[in-house]
Amino acid sequence: MQCNATQDSPFSAMTNSNLQQIGLVGAGLMGGSLAARLARMLPGASLLVHDASPGNAAYVAERHPNARTVAGIADLAGSDVIFVATPVATIAEQVIALLRLPDCAAIIIDTGSAKRMLVDAVAKAGVEAGRFVPGHPLAGGISAGPGRASGDIITARPYVLTPTDSTDPAALTSARALLERLGAEVVEMAPVAHDRLLALGSHLPHLIAYALAGLGSECPDTLLPTSYRGIAAFAGSDPQMWADIFRANGTELKAVLGEFKKRLDLIAAMADEPEPGQLLDSLRDAKARIEALENDG
Amino acid sequence: MQCNATQDSPFSAMTNSNLQQIGLVGAGLMGGSLAARLARMLPGASLLVHDASPGNAAYVAERHPNARTVAGIADLAGSDVIFVATPVATIAEQVIALLRLPDCAAIIIDTGSAKRMLVDAVAKAGVEAGRFVPGHPLAGGISAGPGRASGDIITARPYVLTPTDSTDPAALTSARALLERLGAEVVEMAPVAHDRLLALGSHLPHLIAYALAGLGSECPDTLLPTSYRGIAAFAGSDPQMWADIFRANGTELKAVLGEFKKRLDLIAAMADEPEPGQLLDSLRDAKARIEALENDG
Repeated sequence: MQCNATQDSPFSAMTNSNLQQIGLVGAGLMGGSLAARLARMLPGASLLVHDASPGNAAYVAERHPNARTVAGIADLAGSDVIFVATPVATIAEQVIALLRLPDCAAIIIDTGSAKRMLVDAVAKAGVEAGRFVPGHPLAGGISAGPGRASGDIITARPYVLTPTDSTDPAALTSARALLERLGAEVVEMAPVAHDRLLALGSHLPHLIAYALAGLGSECPDTLLPTSYRGIAAFAGSDPQMWADIFRANGTELKAVLGEFKKRLDLIAAMADEPEPGQLLDSLRDAKARIEALENDG
Repeated sequence: MQCNATQDSPFSAMTNSNLQQIGLVGAGLMGGSLAARLARMLPGASLLVHDASPGNAAYVAERHPNARTVAGIADLAGSDVIFVATPVATIAEQVIALLRLPDCAAIIIDTGSAKRMLVDAVAKAGVEAGRFVPGHPLAGGISAGPGRASGDIITARPYVLTPTDSTDPAALTSARALLERLGAEVVEMAPVAHDRLLALGSHLPHLIAYALAGLGSECPDTLLPTSYRGIAAFAGSDPQMWADIFRANGTELKAVLGEFKKRLDLIAAMADEPEPGQLLDSLRDAKARIEALENDG
């Protein structure tokens, strides 16, 4: 798997103090968390919040010193930056609509968990997309909704940016500077590299959890051991969000699922061998990898 | 999956205060934890400890007020109860050797994670096995070795007993009374029901972890999300122990692995459907199951 992650930050000529108005489309867990960091780090910039649920938008706006809700994305046209933090299935249409807004020069940054389908949809729309910087904060958890939002979800966590050939380098530099100001650790990689990383590191693990949770036992639940509980607990995440993600990153998810099933079968076949040596070596290799991962942080 | 778990405890005529000598074969995590509970709850009974590693045996014996190490299992013949807490691959030979000891009337209880292979091996040995009560404490974790032993590992955790037609009901009653005295929650089920429960609840989850840990990413480890880390962390468990368990419970493990792979494929196929409804229903069902599990404790 090719990663191409680069973590060197170019110097940004844009200072965040230039920012006067920031737009936010989508006031859920991630939108609310971004708003919390914006309130803390750029309290002078006004924040305009739109959400399909007016209650969510109001909830987030009330917690920011300089925010108000707006009825539609057209009201965001005068923003310097607009974050799109809606469910992954609707991000493309929001980004395309924002790019088509007349008299809008805002840099647009999204938070979606699948990138290739998004950048393909934007490219296919035939809209000038230089101001769009596709991104994804590797953050969050089992909770959903603005009530669980917290600036801590963004701080010191990776925020992957996946620019394409269409992305304006100046927009990328500005997006990076703003996200770093919010405390995120910005990483750049290609959209497909992101989708493969997330397929392995997040989408397959959640698919595993949903599949395991779907296998019932006829024994009392109290007898199910901690390893089952620990893994299946990830199926407590929001079904709508995960249905969207599995659909949006289906190609990479199916590829890594195929590798995973091969590995399961390989270990099971080793357990059938007359001698335990090969199985033991394989489990030792996996343990060594996990220990290295835990040491790397 | 048939469970047949029963949690009603028959009254035991045997009082634990009758116990004068207890034997322990295997002074690892589980043996050490049993010794800790014996020291606390039955401090007057002497404990004789044998382990292939004299250092492990000495470590455990030193932490019990009334214990000493012995050189071999023949020294345990005069015990009232003998616990066999060796690695799962060696339990059958230890149990058979103990059942063959002359002048030994001890009740024998084991701690192995796979039961059908064990009871079959004991039956095949042609030895009178009425005194043998096969069992498994659903306890432990990623750690191994007597240094991590703790009475807390036994207390308030299920201890499954899997009697067979050969098991003397009085021996079963005595084993149950002793384990309850140590603070365990005793559950009875058939050996194959145990093996199916553990295949789903522990052995498959660990196989998943080893397989996931074996799928590398070319991205920096720091970018791997928490769901990958949380699941793959179970591959930090002792490879020798898990190699033994995968081999000892291979039949049930492969059966549940087959069901699990079908479920993975089913969810992946639903993600390919033009409409998201079926996928969403499936993820919602899994989430509801996990919430019920968490509420049941």
